[in-house]
Amino acid sequence: MTKLFGGIEAGGTKFVCGVGNLDGEILAKTRIPTTTPADTLSRCVDFFEEQRAILSNFSALGIASFGPLDPRLDSVKYGHILRTPKKGWSDADLVSPFRDAFNVPIGFDTDVNGAALGEWHWGAAKGLSNFIYLTIGTGIGGGVMVNGELVHGLLHPEMGHIPLPKDDSAVSVCPFHDDCFEGLASGPAIEKRWGEKAEDIPVGHPAWEVEASYIARALRSFICTLSPERIILGGGVMQQAHLFPLIRQKILEELNGYMKLPKMDEYIVPVALEGKAGILGAFLLAERAL
Amino acid sequence: MTKLFGGIEAGGTKFVCGVGNLDGEILAKTRIPTTTPADTLSRCVDFFEEQRAILSNFSALGIASFGPLDPRLDSVKYGHILRTPKKGWSDADLVSPFRDAFNVPIGFDTDVNGAALGEWHWGAAKGLSNFIYLTIGTGIGGGVMVNGELVHGLLHPEMGHIPLPKDDSAVSVCPFHDDCFEGLASGPAIEKRWGEKAEDIPVGHPAWEVEASYIARALRSFICTLSPERIILGGGVMQQAHLFPLIRQKILEELNGYMKLPKMDEYIVPVALEGKAGILGAFLLAERAL
Repeated sequence: MTKLFGGIEAGGTKFVCGVGNLDGEILAKTRIPTTTPADTLSRCVDFFEEQRAILSNFSALGIASFGPLDPRLDSVKYGHILRTPKKGWSDADLVSPFRDAFNVPIGFDTDVNGAALGEWHWGAAKGLSNFIYLTIGTGIGGGVMVNGELVHGLLHPEMGHIPLPKDDSAVSVCPFHDDCFEGLASGPAIEKRWGEKAEDIPVGHPAWEVEASYIARALRSFICTLSPERIILGGGVMQQAHLFPLIRQKILEELNGYMKLPKMDEYIVPVALEGKAGILGAFLLAERAL
Repeated sequence: MTKLFGGIEAGGTKFVCGVGNLDGEILAKTRIPTTTPADTLSRCVDFFEEQRAILSNFSALGIASFGPLDPRLDSVKYGHILRTPKKGWSDADLVSPFRDAFNVPIGFDTDVNGAALGEWHWGAAKGLSNFIYLTIGTGIGGGVMVNGELVHGLLHPEMGHIPLPKDDSAVSVCPFHDDCFEGLASGPAIEKRWGEKAEDIPVGHPAWEVEASYIARALRSFICTLSPERIILGGGVMQQAHLFPLIRQKILEELNGYMKLPKMDEYIVPVALEGKAGILGAFLLAERAL
């Protein structure tokens, strides 16, 4: 019988909970608003208890969460969100409530690592061992696979905070850095600079040239550091499909012939799973915890 | 009996050949000037033939070379230097002459990956699974270990070519990029900017503040991308030991409290093997080829 997994995509505005399998089927799903940890997590537990009664027991649970978080199994802070600007969530323990309620293994990692796994198993990174998944939206974050394994290191990458050369009119929305990728190129950065929400800025507006330049510069940094086989771009800003050809062209300009890269439209690609990568990735985190 | 390995550290000015073992003993060693591939490689072959007669046959040979190069076993260009400004060496086949002369497995990787392996086995990265080795000298290059494995990806990282925010008086010596780490902070960049060779610039000279700032900015980029457990700095420029405290302090300023890092003097450290990492690393490449 196909194994059943529980998955949680834990975000700053909502927790998406689902039950499904590694055929990519999501058999039940709900969205729970992110309020307090106690309230949100107990509603998640309720959902999985209901589903367990309806469907059948799940073999493991995966949690793909916003960060920073501690994914180190040997750490006393394992399963916790660390210091976050999200009110009430600093030091929240995301794993224990589920460990207490369900007697199953629990996988826990960043939302971007979850999504990267999803794209690797079903989507745009299928068959690769070295790739980068980046989400460019309200924030900018990345998940990285090297030699078939997710990169964690000390805790996990914070790819939105690399420094980038900026132009004279640049504004950074990052409270920590006046020159980081997230500060210069996230959705809120676009809105602050151009006075309009990214989704309302028309194709052909100079904002997109600037945005593509920052993204290309960041990707050059990641390419030189990791030599990935592919880069997958998702998130709200990347729903502007017209950005892709601009970014591809600007990466070639940035690298200026220094490296030979694969065909650019197979190298810099959009997500394939769209909104589903997070929850499907959580199923894979669950399976890996087995 | 302790296995004997041959190792070659292939550089743009000299090829260092040695025979030794994984106890870190170098039993014989020679330096051969880098002239033409035919001449240099045949002199290397001669050295190993002599040593084989004197010592005993070696079990495998490792080559840690300057790049760019192709380390992919399944590639037709495996074992070759790729397009390089080093005259006569573009497309040079470094592996075949040794494969023809000696009937042993041959390991082939970048000089920086070799040195990283050496530092991992005997030196400053002992016991770690995620670290970065950087050499800052005539050029800037890096070797990366993630989850216990060296990073290759498409070919290998080119960490000297990440873009960095620069100051108004900056000059880049990179023929490809006016804003890359190597262009702004290599030995030749220091010399071009300040009119003196790095080794002749006194401690306390403003050049070192500028240099430390660029290095710190680059390390912030690598830290945010890879979350390494440690960064090991070698190469001619890093023989200026007074740079270390400056770099450590500037990294903390760059990150501005965003991430919790280990104690800085255990996090950003000098090489432990000095000039021996390359040849010892080549022995490890040899052993891995077995």
